[in-house]
Amino acid sequence: MDNTIVALHGVNDLRVEYLPVPEVDRDEVLIRVTKVGLCGSDLCAVYKGTHGDLRIGLPCGLGHEAAGVVTKCGQDVTHVKPGDRVTIEPGTFCRTCELCLTGKHNVCANSSFHGSPRFYPGCLARYYKHKALFVFRLPDSISDEEGAVVEPLAVAVHACRRAEVWAGCRMLVTGAGPIGLLCLSVAKALGATNILITDIKDSRLAMAKRMGADHTLLVTSEDTQCQVQQVQQIMGCQPDITMECSGTKAGLSLGIYVTKSGGKLVQVGVGAPEVTVPLGVYRYVNCFPIAIDLLAKKLVDVKPLITHRFNFEEFQKAFDMFRSAEDGAIKCMISKFTIANIRCSKDFTSHHDNPMVRLFK
Amino acid sequence: MDNTIVALHGVNDLRVEYLPVPEVDRDEVLIRVTKVGLCGSDLCAVYKGTHGDLRIGLPCGLGHEAAGVVTKCGQDVTHVKPGDRVTIEPGTFCRTCELCLTGKHNVCANSSFHGSPRFYPGCLARYYKHKALFVFRLPDSISDEEGAVVEPLAVAVHACRRAEVWAGCRMLVTGAGPIGLLCLSVAKALGATNILITDIKDSRLAMAKRMGADHTLLVTSEDTQCQVQQVQQIMGCQPDITMECSGTKAGLSLGIYVTKSGGKLVQVGVGAPEVTVPLGVYRYVNCFPIAIDLLAKKLVDVKPLITHRFNFEEFQKAFDMFRSAEDGAIKCMISKFTIANIRCSKDFTSHHDNPMVRLFK
Amino acid sequence: MDNTIVALHGVNDLRVEYLPVPEVDRDEVLIRVTKVGLCGSDLCAVYKGTHGDLRIGLPCGLGHEAAGVVTKCGQDVTHVKPGDRVTIEPGTFCRTCELCLTGKHNVCANSSFHGSPRFYPGCLARYYKHKALFVFRLPDSISDEEGAVVEPLAVAVHACRRAEVWAGCRMLVTGAGPIGLLCLSVAKALGATNILITDIKDSRLAMAKRMGADHTLLVTSEDTQCQVQQVQQIMGCQPDITMECSGTKAGLSLGIYVTKSGGKLVQVGVGAPEVTVPLGVYRYVNCFPIAIDLLAKKLVDVKPLITHRFNFEEFQKAFDMFRSAEDGAIKCMISKFTIANIRCSKDFTSHHDNPMVRLFK
Amino acid sequence: MDNTIVALHGVNDLRVEYLPVPEVDRDEVLIRVTKVGLCGSDLCAVYKGTHGDLRIGLPCGLGHEAAGVVTKCGQDVTHVKPGDRVTIEPGTFCRTCELCLTGKHNVCANSSFHGSPRFYPGCLARYYKHKALFVFRLPDSISDEEGAVVEPLAVAVHACRRAEVWAGCRMLVTGAGPIGLLCLSVAKALGATNILITDIKDSRLAMAKRMGADHTLLVTSEDTQCQVQQVQQIMGCQPDITMECSGTKAGLSLGIYVTKSGGKLVQVGVGAPEVTVPLGVYRYVNCFPIAIDLLAKKLVDVKPLITHRFNFEEFQKAFDMFRSAEDGAIKCMISKFTIANIRCSKDFTSHHDNPMVRLFK
Repeated sequence: MDNTIVALHGVNDLRVEYLPVPEVDRDEVLIRVTKVGLCGSDLCAVYKGTHGDLRIGLPCGLGHEAAGVVTKCGQDVTHVKPGDRVTIEPGTFCRTCELCLTGKHNVCANSSFHGSPRFYPGCLARYYKHKALFVFRLPDSISDEEGAVVEPLAVAVHACRRAEVWAGCRMLVTGAGPIGLLCLSVAKALGATNILITDIKDSRLAMAKRMGADHTLLVTSEDTQCQVQQVQQIMGCQPDITMECSGTKAGLSLGIYVTKSGGKLVQVGVGAPEVTVPLGVYRYVNCFPIAIDLLAKKLVDVKPLITHRFNFEEFQKAFDMFRSAEDGAIKCMISKFTIANIRCSKDFTSHHDNPMVRLFK
Repeated sequence: MDNTIVALHGVNDLRVEYLPVPEVDRDEVLIRVTKVGLCGSDLCAVYKGTHGDLRIGLPCGLGHEAAGVVTKCGQDVTHVKPGDRVTIEPGTFCRTCELCLTGKHNVCANSSFHGSPRFYPGCLARYYKHKALFVFRLPDSISDEEGAVVEPLAVAVHACRRAEVWAGCRMLVTGAGPIGLLCLSVAKALGATNILITDIKDSRLAMAKRMGADHTLLVTSEDTQCQVQQVQQIMGCQPDITMECSGTKAGLSLGIYVTKSGGKLVQVGVGAPEVTVPLGVYRYVNCFPIAIDLLAKKLVDVKPLITHRFNFEEFQKAFDMFRSAEDGAIKCMISKFTIANIRCSKDFTSHHDNPMVRLFK
Repeated sequence: MDNTIVALHGVNDLRVEYLPVPEVDRDEVLIRVTKVGLCGSDLCAVYKGTHGDLRIGLPCGLGHEAAGVVTKCGQDVTHVKPGDRVTIEPGTFCRTCELCLTGKHNVCANSSFHGSPRFYPGCLARYYKHKALFVFRLPDSISDEEGAVVEPLAVAVHACRRAEVWAGCRMLVTGAGPIGLLCLSVAKALGATNILITDIKDSRLAMAKRMGADHTLLVTSEDTQCQVQQVQQIMGCQPDITMECSGTKAGLSLGIYVTKSGGKLVQVGVGAPEVTVPLGVYRYVNCFPIAIDLLAKKLVDVKPLITHRFNFEEFQKAFDMFRSAEDGAIKCMISKFTIANIRCSKDFTSHHDNPMVRLFK
Repeated sequence: MDNTIVALHGVNDLRVEYLPVPEVDRDEVLIRVTKVGLCGSDLCAVYKGTHGDLRIGLPCGLGHEAAGVVTKCGQDVTHVKPGDRVTIEPGTFCRTCELCLTGKHNVCANSSFHGSPRFYPGCLARYYKHKALFVFRLPDSISDEEGAVVEPLAVAVHACRRAEVWAGCRMLVTGAGPIGLLCLSVAKALGATNILITDIKDSRLAMAKRMGADHTLLVTSEDTQCQVQQVQQIMGCQPDITMECSGTKAGLSLGIYVTKSGGKLVQVGVGAPEVTVPLGVYRYVNCFPIAIDLLAKKLVDVKPLITHRFNFEEFQKAFDMFRSAEDGAIKCMISKFTIANIRCSKDFTSHHDNPMVRLFK
């Protein structure tokens, strides 16, 4: 029996092909595909030939949001059986590296995903073969069509878990495409109650309203600070969490500036190849007792760092030396606060035009 | 009795001033300063008049790395007493906002830090007044000079905690200034065993070696990919953690590209006002069972998302419609895999030049 | 003006008293109480004179679940004003210890709570004075009566946060008293979908059903293993999370045995003074690479541990020595697998009655 | 070629047996064993026939702390090759369940460990076959004997990770057997600086001193409160972390009472089958804003809970009704603070013998 597949052979070059129905290995499952959803990354593959910042290999299988019916199981497969309705988690993972073993197979360096030669053909096919471990049975209450949406829904679940969405939290979602809308839905299921979603299309915001958005904002300008104002005015607060689902630099900038201090910003999916953000770990919190302990117990020795020492009255010299660092200055230390001794000079006052003061500049 | 202080009155305009010794409130402590360390941010204030991307207020007190001796305590103060040698955690915090109450006072929106008018004068003074809560007693085993290094050391402790440094972990530190060197020291105390530190100055790398760096790398070019190669070659692996302590875009880029998948990158302190990074939450991990559960329990309804449906043989139309989105397409679903029925057409083959195939493009 | 309060002067000795309306300090608020809910701990105080395993001090104020209207504010108070409807978080905390500063004031060693002399009188009074920091404004959508339930609701929120309740998770709640019912409600708001609640009273289970429990189980016997069976049969699975809200040893035992491996058990509130549980951290996971690294980098030296060495053929001696530990045996190491050499003895077989074999016992 | 193994055939019935050298499957490795360490659980198996609270299956292989040399690899094995010196992580795991996929294979319900029939024979053998995934190469700097200690060392690493040992932390280790001593070593490598270790044997405490313990305590009585005093006196503080490594109820009790509030207690390994502990989640912290939000957003409905309402002057009735709960009382609410109206009764005073007051009891 033959298999019918759709593959990409070049930019905007989709073709139907006929291949043998694949054989299943002992840990694999053969699925008769019933539904395939299209994703933005499929569009990108077809019309740009890229996947994120990678060029896809050709020919390239298409379709990774799929539901179907199991038709054959390898000998080691026990959790599904022929006739079961299933959905698939696309990709393969090595299952042996540190990341796989610690529950992070999504960043496994040996993983493959659709758009790579190992995933030819994809799910846009009559039959599709997959590792049984990543085949999930659908209960009767989930239709095939819904089953084909489980993959993007899992993206939203992952994003909400990383953001630690909490009941009552206030959230901004930038971008009301499928992923943004699914993040909205999952966040609502987790109890988020004040959700504003943005987009550049009214039709998408209408859908967002229908799916439960508390507020919507049509983005009409590129002025980040103006958007920050609008978001705060509509929500009545800064968002605790921003889910960036637009894949744009503008969405990320808005998120960075509007999310409250100590809040979370999650860039869902890979956006623009590079984005420009202000970021950093800020100072310290509750670290002084530990730092003191490290010194007291001689676990850390900071003495070598102090390369230069100055008296208080030499403060200007200290700054200048530190600035020039010509002498390999690492840490300059000021001590011996004897300056008051020279205060007997009657000219030495705090008046800014006093020449003595200038002397110290 | 008067107090002697050094304050900044303009770019490169340091002046000595004489002010009354401050009165202490009931929760405050008066400290006779003995040592003050200079920090890169002091340099920035004096010679550029800025603190990060903020313009400092004038006149501006200087000095926030300090040790001294308590000379007076407010009535509510119990944990230190006159005569105690102490160091200070600079800054004030509201102690009432959600962030302060949840242990994150470092990002308190109502905090003040040196360089703000509320911190005039600073520690570069004979006497300095501070909230008792942020005054820490030094044990006899810590000298005043070491005590004045507790503040930058706390920065390093915080960074290592955020990075979750672990015994045996492999770390890259970019930048061998005081903060980079202290991060190196703390990481070693926590058991990190393979640490490479970079800098553009040989003298700093020599200091790094002296403080226990396993490897050093003199950065001589701006070529990130070349540096990535060098780091991996010297370390024999990708770093688990990168501590970006150079405050440069080059350091951050190196960290992003060389840190292993699933590793951690910590930007210590605030670097360049804006940095350009590729980032994002990648896909999902162990989320399919949850996504299926959300659908099965009707906690999430994805049906409205499916705006368009196509038969398998209409795949090209599906892609084109989705691309144009002229009809508000959110999710296009392909089903009814009946294409084999039209296979009887003897012209319909996978041969790429076949006109039938072109028809389907 | 006088204040009217109800206080406890002995077991089952409640009295009305008239005291001056309290003065407020600069960080305090005076509240005219409108609603007070009664809690199990109030019952315990009144009829047993105890609070957990502590004897309460007398006279003891009563009432810690309260709503009311602000009538006066100290000079430092900014977030509420006279006329605001509020609820209170009972208790005081030092706000200066490590626990308070790291966001864990609930376990502050210097905290006071109702039932202590510092909380005389309690909220069962016409007027009640409280630290402003722990006075929370009620929005119009929350009635005073609901406001008086915020305190036990916060207990449920805390429990659900500690349990990390997740959308779709399966939960057992043991005990359908107010706390159990509130845990049920909060867990549902967080998306828990398969919740079984147990109690010994039908009336409480009826209330649980009304508040959204998926399943209920009337507990009629003390047989833990029987209950384990029932819970799994009704839920169709083991619970991911058990919230023990009955305060009984039986509830805790059920939770321990029925919760799935790797799941969570939260004892909400303090149950019986002591409970008997099987517990422990089990082995290791993904720790071998780290252990090897610690040895390779000489961070850990295990050689002193190996106190005794034996050849393979001395295995019986090794076990016996280790057992008696008469010689300070810490780690016995078996090596030199030379036993095959003695295999030439034709009598030496695996037959169990062979005398040579017995020799090795 | 034959394999020589030692197996347990009954309590204190160790026998040598000769079996064929095992064949390796494609994901397995054959190891020529060079060193085997003995563990307390081996003793338990040999002399009691139990493993924790489980009866072991007979015959039972022995030895799970092993090092050796790879002699054969299955076809799929790539990370080790014949001739490599290795150690093994004992046990097998299903690698497909939720726990395995989320990085918690140690609690996999389908795992097997030594002492189970699937682990016959064990490592106390000339040759041992193991899944390649759990075979770890030893660098040259680790001897075979050290390699055989990696397994118990991994137990200590896991315990220290669960306890989140931090540089400068203060730790109590109860029990100076191999596991306690290894926990001590790992904690020191992680920067713990104030470690007290207890035991009932002087020889073990001497070893602990040699391995770096800051303090030791010979336990001579069963009086927990007395031990609590001793520990605090010696350490000068309460421990942040207690590692219970004695497997005794006494050790656990000490840990529970002496560990500081908000600290961590880790029961390393499985101790007594059941232990008696006081435990519970205490109240709430920073939960009031969330609780208010849940009510305001109608995510939680607490109104059904309020089953009974009373006026202030009926407070005694409220308590009594709540106590009897004869009417299915869940939450009793007291309101309408009108009691002052009846104050006109001149007999109604706070004097405790006043009959009106008694009326209110």
